[in-house]
Amino acid sequence: MKAAIVRSFDAPLDVNEMEKPTPGPHQALVKLVASGVCHTDLHAAEGDWPVKPAPPFVPGHEGVGVVEAVGPDVDDLKVGDMVGNAWMWSACGKCEFCRQGWETLCVDEQLGGYTVNGSFGEYMLVDARYAPRIPEGVDPIEAAPILCAGVTVYKGLKETEVKPGQWVVISGIGGLGHVAVQYAVAMGMRVVAVDIADDKLELAKKHGAEVVVNAKDGDPVPAVVEATQGGAHGILVTAVHPQAFDQAIGMSRKLGTIVFVGLPPAKTEVSIFDIVLNRITIRGSIVGTRQDMVEALNFFARGLIKPTLTTRTLDEINDIFDEMHRGAIDGRIVIDYSK
Amino acid sequence: MKAAIVRSFDAPLDVNEMEKPTPGPHQALVKLVASGVCHTDLHAAEGDWPVKPAPPFVPGHEGVGVVEAVGPDVDDLKVGDMVGNAWMWSACGKCEFCRQGWETLCVDEQLGGYTVNGSFGEYMLVDARYAPRIPEGVDPIEAAPILCAGVTVYKGLKETEVKPGQWVVISGIGGLGHVAVQYAVAMGMRVVAVDIADDKLELAKKHGAEVVVNAKDGDPVPAVVEATQGGAHGILVTAVHPQAFDQAIGMSRKLGTIVFVGLPPAKTEVSIFDIVLNRITIRGSIVGTRQDMVEALNFFARGLIKPTLTTRTLDEINDIFDEMHRGAIDGRIVIDYSK
Amino acid sequence: MKAAIVRSFDAPLDVNEMEKPTPGPHQALVKLVASGVCHTDLHAAEGDWPVKPAPPFVPGHEGVGVVEAVGPDVDDLKVGDMVGNAWMWSACGKCEFCRQGWETLCVDEQLGGYTVNGSFGEYMLVDARYAPRIPEGVDPIEAAPILCAGVTVYKGLKETEVKPGQWVVISGIGGLGHVAVQYAVAMGMRVVAVDIADDKLELAKKHGAEVVVNAKDGDPVPAVVEATQGGAHGILVTAVHPQAFDQAIGMSRKLGTIVFVGLPPAKTEVSIFDIVLNRITIRGSIVGTRQDMVEALNFFARGLIKPTLTTRTLDEINDIFDEMHRGAIDGRIVIDYSK
Amino acid sequence: MKAAIVRSFDAPLDVNEMEKPTPGPHQALVKLVASGVCHTDLHAAEGDWPVKPAPPFVPGHEGVGVVEAVGPDVDDLKVGDMVGNAWMWSACGKCEFCRQGWETLCVDEQLGGYTVNGSFGEYMLVDARYAPRIPEGVDPIEAAPILCAGVTVYKGLKETEVKPGQWVVISGIGGLGHVAVQYAVAMGMRVVAVDIADDKLELAKKHGAEVVVNAKDGDPVPAVVEATQGGAHGILVTAVHPQAFDQAIGMSRKLGTIVFVGLPPAKTEVSIFDIVLNRITIRGSIVGTRQDMVEALNFFARGLIKPTLTTRTLDEINDIFDEMHRGAIDGRIVIDYSK
Repeated sequence: MKAAIVRSFDAPLDVNEMEKPTPGPHQALVKLVASGVCHTDLHAAEGDWPVKPAPPFVPGHEGVGVVEAVGPDVDDLKVGDMVGNAWMWSACGKCEFCRQGWETLCVDEQLGGYTVNGSFGEYMLVDARYAPRIPEGVDPIEAAPILCAGVTVYKGLKETEVKPGQWVVISGIGGLGHVAVQYAVAMGMRVVAVDIADDKLELAKKHGAEVVVNAKDGDPVPAVVEATQGGAHGILVTAVHPQAFDQAIGMSRKLGTIVFVGLPPAKTEVSIFDIVLNRITIRGSIVGTRQDMVEALNFFARGLIKPTLTTRTLDEINDIFDEMHRGAIDGRIVIDYSK
Repeated sequence: MKAAIVRSFDAPLDVNEMEKPTPGPHQALVKLVASGVCHTDLHAAEGDWPVKPAPPFVPGHEGVGVVEAVGPDVDDLKVGDMVGNAWMWSACGKCEFCRQGWETLCVDEQLGGYTVNGSFGEYMLVDARYAPRIPEGVDPIEAAPILCAGVTVYKGLKETEVKPGQWVVISGIGGLGHVAVQYAVAMGMRVVAVDIADDKLELAKKHGAEVVVNAKDGDPVPAVVEATQGGAHGILVTAVHPQAFDQAIGMSRKLGTIVFVGLPPAKTEVSIFDIVLNRITIRGSIVGTRQDMVEALNFFARGLIKPTLTTRTLDEINDIFDEMHRGAIDGRIVIDYSK
Repeated sequence: MKAAIVRSFDAPLDVNEMEKPTPGPHQALVKLVASGVCHTDLHAAEGDWPVKPAPPFVPGHEGVGVVEAVGPDVDDLKVGDMVGNAWMWSACGKCEFCRQGWETLCVDEQLGGYTVNGSFGEYMLVDARYAPRIPEGVDPIEAAPILCAGVTVYKGLKETEVKPGQWVVISGIGGLGHVAVQYAVAMGMRVVAVDIADDKLELAKKHGAEVVVNAKDGDPVPAVVEATQGGAHGILVTAVHPQAFDQAIGMSRKLGTIVFVGLPPAKTEVSIFDIVLNRITIRGSIVGTRQDMVEALNFFARGLIKPTLTTRTLDEINDIFDEMHRGAIDGRIVIDYSK
Repeated sequence: MKAAIVRSFDAPLDVNEMEKPTPGPHQALVKLVASGVCHTDLHAAEGDWPVKPAPPFVPGHEGVGVVEAVGPDVDDLKVGDMVGNAWMWSACGKCEFCRQGWETLCVDEQLGGYTVNGSFGEYMLVDARYAPRIPEGVDPIEAAPILCAGVTVYKGLKETEVKPGQWVVISGIGGLGHVAVQYAVAMGMRVVAVDIADDKLELAKKHGAEVVVNAKDGDPVPAVVEATQGGAHGILVTAVHPQAFDQAIGMSRKLGTIVFVGLPPAKTEVSIFDIVLNRITIRGSIVGTRQDMVEALNFFARGLIKPTLTTRTLDEINDIFDEMHRGAIDGRIVIDYSK
């Protein structure tokens, strides 16, 4: 099988042949149809996070494909089923976090395309107990970005605790943000979109944002506070530049919640005075559990979420990473294995 | 009447005669028995917060006394009742925060000893609709620190969302922290106390802390993580030095909540990476509502909370402020008006 | 002024002249534009609830009108403002329930059209601190039913704790139910409507119900369980016949919540076995607070809620009550004072 | 091995030899040290619940013992470990309830001593992924009742949502109730105990109940309402007679929550009027998850819970059931396998 292999953190990916894996207990072998490309894959390939993966390995955690074979002890997945992989590839099912429905914090978690091989290849293995089931009738290409971008922002929005009818700011309308606008609208929230590009703000409007603010035109905080009559009840920060973090506090209504879903290596400054006086909550949120995934896919299958995407081939993976570095990507890139 | 008056932010308080106030609608005139002295009074007197009070004014928001007269429209307070004042002196009762039981965030709040005269005088006015009722049978001297230190840490502990049987770190065992240990124990939490003074850690132990860590001996994080088998479920930061903020993230269990109750003018750095990966929540908490106050006083009246305090006279107020500046205070200072 | 006056529980209302009231402290005099008619008005007029109103009195708690005069101590309402009255006419602002944002449970609440005169007259008094503000630009006739039917079902839906994307059953598609369908859809819920009349189910569909079940055709439980793949996450019971209560338990998913918003005098049987085994929650919900009202009116002002109604005149009030008795009313009756 | 076997629902248990089981995948063989006897075992043996077990089978779901052998795929349990069985013997780990930390509602749950053989024998099998770990240093005899009675009331108390400092009524001070009093106290709640036997109320007092009410002396509702100044915030109903259900509503404060943990076959009448007007919540709660179990055992291991119990031998099982029928049991019966 062909795959894009990370052999060293300072070399391009090697798109080459490797052996097709064999499913072990609880595992299934999946023939890929599509795989989204996520910023996390870039971090994986470059090894720039504190805990690094061990080359050689295959990145990719937004894969969608068809089960071709199942290993022992697989009782609820069969050949022909359409499934995906995810960042949370598997969890232990027993630790205090798994026991409480917080398996994304599992102490013995496996990470798709990071600690186990991922979806940048013609085949991948999944853990049948954890692999997302792709709902019937959906386009597998469009389903791919739901598996990470979709579930991440959906969970992040839940974590803002914004109620239907309340205001949420989506800060950054890129691969994650434009999907976040759609989930927020489907969840009954009123949306303010903030970005520095007018075309992205146009996209946000098309997806139902009531207010858009271009942060290039100056500090977006006053515009957000005015439009929401006092600040938003929640802010989902998908942007990764420090200014976005700082502005989020200014955009927050008293009693508001700011949620970060990105993993920038940098630190941000927080004014304790402001968060105490206004009783602001700041929270980190990381991907989503199987239950979050089922819910995120369900909104998608109902036709309420439509990711903007461009399809490419696996051979172009190093070009795609270059474009990511340059910030030259609109929406999401999805590798189409039928091409 | 005699009172300690702030005439200018850069002069000592003027302990002098001023006119006894007359209660307006909804107000009562209270003859002081005792008043705690809080760091906030120091900030008020020195005008070092962004929004400043307007001299001349009388600080103090931990006052306890006896109703001597009531103004018009007071229907549930009578001469002889023992009441207090508080930081949240009154609220509008109508804004979105008041409507939701979050009157501490009221857009039209009056602040005791800040926007209205406070308890550093022989008499004070209170708003009968908002003044805390002092439960029968308690020592008014000991009740004073409950009105700010007590309710602040009690509310802060509620905001950690730590459940009975879970671990909470109380970071800083000063005027607030030593009371926080007692509330946490009464709320069924397991307590780790962190400070840099052995005698304060001894006090924490006496009040029921199961683990004490002296941060002077080195980074307290590993000791907390080990004692709690993975980090505490909640951290209440009463200390105001930036290092305490940073350490709080390290002490947090995955899924944990860090609550700040102080109002330091400085900023703190937060690692977004850590709070995202571990789903940590950081929250500001400011004093407490009338309902929080009733509850905090109820724990106190049941004998579960005993503030460590030293009584002084109003004439010593400038000395007390000096000692505060030098960090030379154990527990809480309470002005005893009978002296 | 003309008003419909209850002089005795066993006589028709007396539509007659009475003295125009004068606003006291915190009160405003309102010239009525419209008033909805609620089943509660019937209960008031017939005195069939345990705690009875004291004739003579004027029922009505869905009134909308224009402020004509204000009494003393009214600071945020002025002549010409459009306001309403409500079942929760005023509350004390001080009891443990008021303090917690649960003023609907106030121990010293006044009830519109029950303990104080209501909106079945050309003029009414409101408490300026509690009277709902009618958003600008809306039709006052359509706003009337929001003040009780709207806020009641909106709050009831919140109390089901159903999250966006989850299923809710609206049981009974009458005056309350057809509004509930619209709120549920606006809140991102998926709706199953249950009734015994096909035209009401058609209306539910028009308002966005995905599934409709006619309970006349037999036990609706299996159809609901099948459509929702295991039962609904929440059930809002607006119907008042005992069978609806019993069926609600069958329709509930494990972990589901059933909310009752009606006040039938009868008792219902509950199978403890079923609610224990399936961890079902049963909850009563009564009208809504000022905050709920603001939110409910906000959904309405955004054009997301459109009550089905018929306008009538005050003179017809006894006919309207007759029709209510016979169940001959579609949607809501609103008295139009301009007719 | 010797075991107490149900051969038919209308015959006594047959205490006899049977084959020692062999652990399959994920299973461990456990040599029993002790086993509590629960009312559920009686229901199992008599087959009087809607879904019946299939004789022959061995009841018992409060077993504590030592691992003697492990089957394949057991990675975190070893020979010599002390573990227990529980009513929730195992769950699927994959359904929507397992995914959300509600495995007690699992659609494919196995039940200890009901759908799989239980602890009324010298040996039992447990599922290593779900079997409770008995904390080191505790008395295994006393640990046994924690595995069902303990976790059931602990979870039930959590489900009341009573906060530290608030009032809870424990209705019925039998095998469950006397343990519930201790958990409630450890959780910072204030306890009212209600029973019809003075010696049980004495026991409740010893364990920290502040108020005790003997329901034999007349309607206990007024006494509870008075002692709690308005009703309790939560009521845990461990009693199984219908009167207790009815009284619970009267004992509830507005906004209160009533939790049922028993599984009586009968129905109870609920006044919808009362629960709507007072916004009361009624909820069923069934045993506890692995996480609840860890927490419940942790309180026990800290020495905060001490079940009152009498030890007996397995041979006496039919006598014990007789005594249960007659209500002649104080606290809990535990079979001591060393006798």
